[in-house]
Amino acid sequence: MQNRRIVLASRPHGAPSEQNFRLETLPAAEPGEGQALVRTVFLSLDPYMRGRMSDAPSYAAPVQIGGTMEAGVVGRVVQSRSPELAPGDWVEARLGWQEYAVADAKALRKLPPGAPPSTGLGVLGMPGMTAWVGMANIGQPKPGETVVVAAASGPVGSMVGQIARIRGARAVGIAGGADKCAYVRSLGFEDCIDHRDPAMAERLAEACPKGIDVYFENVSGKVWEAVLPLLNPFARVPVCGLIANYNMTELPPGPDRTPQVMRAVLSKRLLIRGFLVFDFADQQAAFLEEAGRWLAEGKIKHREDVTEGLENAPRAFIAMLGGGNFGKTLVRVGPD
Amino acid sequence: MQNRRIVLASRPHGAPSEQNFRLETLPAAEPGEGQALVRTVFLSLDPYMRGRMSDAPSYAAPVQIGGTMEAGVVGRVVQSRSPELAPGDWVEARLGWQEYAVADAKALRKLPPGAPPSTGLGVLGMPGMTAWVGMANIGQPKPGETVVVAAASGPVGSMVGQIARIRGARAVGIAGGADKCAYVRSLGFEDCIDHRDPAMAERLAEACPKGIDVYFENVSGKVWEAVLPLLNPFARVPVCGLIANYNMTELPPGPDRTPQVMRAVLSKRLLIRGFLVFDFADQQAAFLEEAGRWLAEGKIKHREDVTEGLENAPRAFIAMLGGGNFGKTLVRVGPD
Repeated sequence: MQNRRIVLASRPHGAPSEQNFRLETLPAAEPGEGQALVRTVFLSLDPYMRGRMSDAPSYAAPVQIGGTMEAGVVGRVVQSRSPELAPGDWVEARLGWQEYAVADAKALRKLPPGAPPSTGLGVLGMPGMTAWVGMANIGQPKPGETVVVAAASGPVGSMVGQIARIRGARAVGIAGGADKCAYVRSLGFEDCIDHRDPAMAERLAEACPKGIDVYFENVSGKVWEAVLPLLNPFARVPVCGLIANYNMTELPPGPDRTPQVMRAVLSKRLLIRGFLVFDFADQQAAFLEEAGRWLAEGKIKHREDVTEGLENAPRAFIAMLGGGNFGKTLVRVGPD
Repeated sequence: MQNRRIVLASRPHGAPSEQNFRLETLPAAEPGEGQALVRTVFLSLDPYMRGRMSDAPSYAAPVQIGGTMEAGVVGRVVQSRSPELAPGDWVEARLGWQEYAVADAKALRKLPPGAPPSTGLGVLGMPGMTAWVGMANIGQPKPGETVVVAAASGPVGSMVGQIARIRGARAVGIAGGADKCAYVRSLGFEDCIDHRDPAMAERLAEACPKGIDVYFENVSGKVWEAVLPLLNPFARVPVCGLIANYNMTELPPGPDRTPQVMRAVLSKRLLIRGFLVFDFADQQAAFLEEAGRWLAEGKIKHREDVTEGLENAPRAFIAMLGGGNFGKTLVRVGPD
């Protein structure tokens, strides 16, 4: 059986291009004892993958040149040599940008019945859990507080705002363009600011008349600059992503604003804390229980942006980094 | 009875000068019912007072032009119209840069017997408690971890390092000059780096071979730049002061290093949290109990730098901002 996969052909300087990727065809591996062969149905594309393409020091090792691009996928067991899995089972795992992969059974998470399998990569997967653990452990919104999040039509941002609303807080989103902003408002956000609006900072201030208590940071850049003066005393800033900086090849021109940030940290007693979803792996069951219930009860909505065909994954990934997606970015690699 | 006081004559631009202060003589106030008249013995000089001289937005209102400079003092009750206080009692309170002041009895903290009264402004006062609450609530050093603090011969920094040592962590200090560094090492710090050394960053890296787990931020500037690359994953950064920035009149030249800081926050999952000692006022009893015991048992040492005479307070304050003090800066305003 042949396996098609996408490997890292070269490291990007600045924004990635399709030339940084290469499609390869080679025989699929055979499962060993305790392993299973999985066929990918949906592949998840997420901003963190830009970091894996670089060899700058980070929390995770980079993808090697010639190595399969990393990703979470949902797929179906084709062949199993583990008593825990049977052919046809739906599983979620980090199997990469490819059609087939072999993995240890213990690295494969069986999807619970009920929700559509693709949600295991979005609202009930890594992005949804990122929002949930960041809000539960760091943001901790209280009723009546104001929560701001950018990329608000995306899978993390949309969940952040909906959690804020469920917790009795006011959510204000930031997104690119009128369509996305309309969608964000339809999720129950009080307001949504278009980051392309030259008066974005003023509009944000108007939308947050009582200041900002939680800023869920996933973009950085000019949004962070607009948020900083609006933060209230004791505001919390969970930091899970910095998409505006990922393609940066050098630091922006001066002045150096670090003293401004540190002054705000001190005088407003801010809490700024970076986190990754897998730092809170022990909270996965609690997340799946609560978010699964919200989804079943219709308390949260989600949206997927599906590109067809593994070969189109690089293009979809590049578009997503520039905000070209609308909802959770997925690639359909094969039929259900 | 005449009272001498020092008022803010004008707001400084950059470093304060003696022209920003004015000595005035006027009649002392009379205590009303429930109040007491206090004679200042020691006046505390602390870096935060630089912030009070400016009218930039901050956590506390600025001193008004013509208003008495703010400060904590220890002194003795001269006249009391409260059953809780008697003439001769030692008290600590925020009474300002003056010889006499009237205050409500409930705003006067009676000093416990035992330790010398001046310690109520230093090791057993606001600076000592700043170190204690910052380490207890944010820094939380674990045995074997490395704790770094600057201004390490000062009242906050020296306490931070000694708490680290008591908790089983390794303390590395930063201070200005060989004498201060020798003193810092005598407190049980593993090492002390002279911030005037052009190779300060390299020396700090050598002194922290296992990286930095807690950086207690009270200076900012080039120390923060040297610390950032050495921070370990999950490092904690309590921020209680930024003395290197206080006299800054404009942001430093570029590039803008904010993205570098935010990248470290995310990839190392740093916790950066600003705090003020009075955010933890409810922990004062616990602090006084533990720090008082350490002091009585000889487990912590402290050092005072005393200037004689209220009229010399502006000069001593200006010198302190430039690192000219050696230990807790006090002004002796009157006899015991």
